[in-house]
Amino acid sequence: MPEREETHLRGPVRVIGTGLLGTSVALACRRRGLDVLLSDVAREHVRTASGLGAGRPDDGTCPQLVVIAVPPDHLGAAIAAALTEGDAVVTDVGSIKSRPLAEVRAAVPPAALARYVGSHPMAGSERSGPLAASATLFEGRPWAITAHAESDPAAVNLVRELVDLCGAVPLEYSPDEHDRAVARVSHLPHLMSSLTAGRLAAAPADHLALSGQGVRDVTRIAASDPSLWKQIITGNAEALTELLDDVARRLAQLREIVTAADADALAALLAEGVAGTQAIPGKHGGPARPTTGIFVSVPDHAGELARLFADAGADGVNIEDVHIDHDPGRPVGLVELVVAAEEAEHLVTSLTARGWTVHP
Amino acid sequence: MPEREETHLRGPVRVIGTGLLGTSVALACRRRGLDVLLSDVAREHVRTASGLGAGRPDDGTCPQLVVIAVPPDHLGAAIAAALTEGDAVVTDVGSIKSRPLAEVRAAVPPAALARYVGSHPMAGSERSGPLAASATLFEGRPWAITAHAESDPAAVNLVRELVDLCGAVPLEYSPDEHDRAVARVSHLPHLMSSLTAGRLAAAPADHLALSGQGVRDVTRIAASDPSLWKQIITGNAEALTELLDDVARRLAQLREIVTAADADALAALLAEGVAGTQAIPGKHGGPARPTTGIFVSVPDHAGELARLFADAGADGVNIEDVHIDHDPGRPVGLVELVVAAEEAEHLVTSLTARGWTVHP
Repeated sequence: MPEREETHLRGPVRVIGTGLLGTSVALACRRRGLDVLLSDVAREHVRTASGLGAGRPDDGTCPQLVVIAVPPDHLGAAIAAALTEGDAVVTDVGSIKSRPLAEVRAAVPPAALARYVGSHPMAGSERSGPLAASATLFEGRPWAITAHAESDPAAVNLVRELVDLCGAVPLEYSPDEHDRAVARVSHLPHLMSSLTAGRLAAAPADHLALSGQGVRDVTRIAASDPSLWKQIITGNAEALTELLDDVARRLAQLREIVTAADADALAALLAEGVAGTQAIPGKHGGPARPTTGIFVSVPDHAGELARLFADAGADGVNIEDVHIDHDPGRPVGLVELVVAAEEAEHLVTSLTARGWTVHP
Repeated sequence: MPEREETHLRGPVRVIGTGLLGTSVALACRRRGLDVLLSDVAREHVRTASGLGAGRPDDGTCPQLVVIAVPPDHLGAAIAAALTEGDAVVTDVGSIKSRPLAEVRAAVPPAALARYVGSHPMAGSERSGPLAASATLFEGRPWAITAHAESDPAAVNLVRELVDLCGAVPLEYSPDEHDRAVARVSHLPHLMSSLTAGRLAAAPADHLALSGQGVRDVTRIAASDPSLWKQIITGNAEALTELLDDVARRLAQLREIVTAADADALAALLAEGVAGTQAIPGKHGGPARPTTGIFVSVPDHAGELARLFADAGADGVNIEDVHIDHDPGRPVGLVELVVAAEEAEHLVTSLTARGWTVHP
């Protein structure tokens, strides 16, 4: 028997939790014609999701696959209940994997446990609720699949098919490895952003008047919903504690370095940060390409950005990223167009020729 | 005699240090027809700057105003030398104010000290060198003016005229207050960004594959030049030490909260971060207006962004901000258009009608 048994995702798919992620999975399944059964503790969410074409209210039909999309604190209980209720394969789309697995392991017999394969799509969470859902939410996004030692290979294949159906990029991790990875690339950055933003709350308004784009970028994710994030953070305490201790050690060193005005040690610490930014994979997962920022003054009214992008696009230059700088005091924005380094000079020349004020 | 004596900035203006900031000040002065004298330890920078029309090489003509635009470590000595050499008013555009002032105070007699008024334009520093300069770099930007107790009111007025001439928004602080403000809104965020990025440098590549927009935003400024930032940080050690101690205390609390899985305490700490993000003044210095992010799938090739902005602009909707999400694995970008909350629904409807895949 081959290690990967042949399976075929044919439905029905039961989606438990019809918020942003659950409803988006449901819409992607419906797009492929699968029968989708929707349930949620909030019945109006089921009505909304089914009204959007995400499926029909759960009537007890036996599903082939159950997708659990409930808040982190409720994952373990919901997965265990789904495994116990029937013989479907069960997955979830939660942000943490080890703790729910431990809860499931303690609650169900081994035969049922084999039907569980955790997963985690890396899709935006700044919006919430079924109205924010989309069948294309996961397109091109990484989607972690976190099989455990006892997972049935056929169950793993079925979850892989779900990821394919959603247009996402499957990446495989053990549950522990996944949790350590997201602690580093998501949960720790969130806490650091929050700690930085927390220092602003009590600051005099005229101090905050000197805020530039840097502090806005660093603190953007600190604006996210505390009620969701407290569950994610406490649910991944073990992996996070190690990183928090690491940060605390470096922070104590930094404090000594700053007090001693040890410029060389400080440069080394800052260089470690530069290396970290370079380690983040580039757009489209490839190595980071050298890019250059072109700054353009743009009057702040409808249509001007369109004109800028039309002028840039007319030259065939591909804009890799855009930042709009906030400009206290007057209605002109400074827009940064990030382009491949070798295209920068051409773009500056051409935008200038078209009458834009460009700061190369 | 009125407190603010009448003065008139008529030049010559001597600019010492023809990097990004110095050359931009020089270009702004030339635009108003002032005679500008340029000097720099790097003679090729003077040639480049004068070639750009920023002024003429310094020939020893007595200036009315000297603008010092050298790296932080050299500010004190350069300001003191300029005060001693002649009887011009002297300002600087450095990121730190108290330490250079103390050095100047120790080096020059009171009559010379009165002619010094520090200042600090809040303009981008990701680019450097005279080629990156622009007469419009400071337009609409906050520009801190940091008179000290002994500053001559006429000298303060002259610096205020320079700020006006550059199109910036003057904001007045004592040197100490300025340094405490930028420690909080600029230097601490930089260090937190760097500490977070530093944790990525040694991470396995497959962990970093789960990186999303959040960690990219938090760590963006950590990519800046360590040789400049080590001078800024060590030059503002006193104000920063207090904040670093504050962060270390909160980090230790956070570690206990996470270990104890104290969800309520964690929610309170995260809420403090939310409050901090809300305290940052809105675009154009006004109170932050409620905005909504609209997510649109955009094929990643030249012209598509232009088409999107043209379609958005055709409806008269003003785009407040833009983020392009990095999308590992496939050539479609997810673009977030940030618009006033009351315009979001209209924009979603209209972009959808024009064929865009919109995730509201």
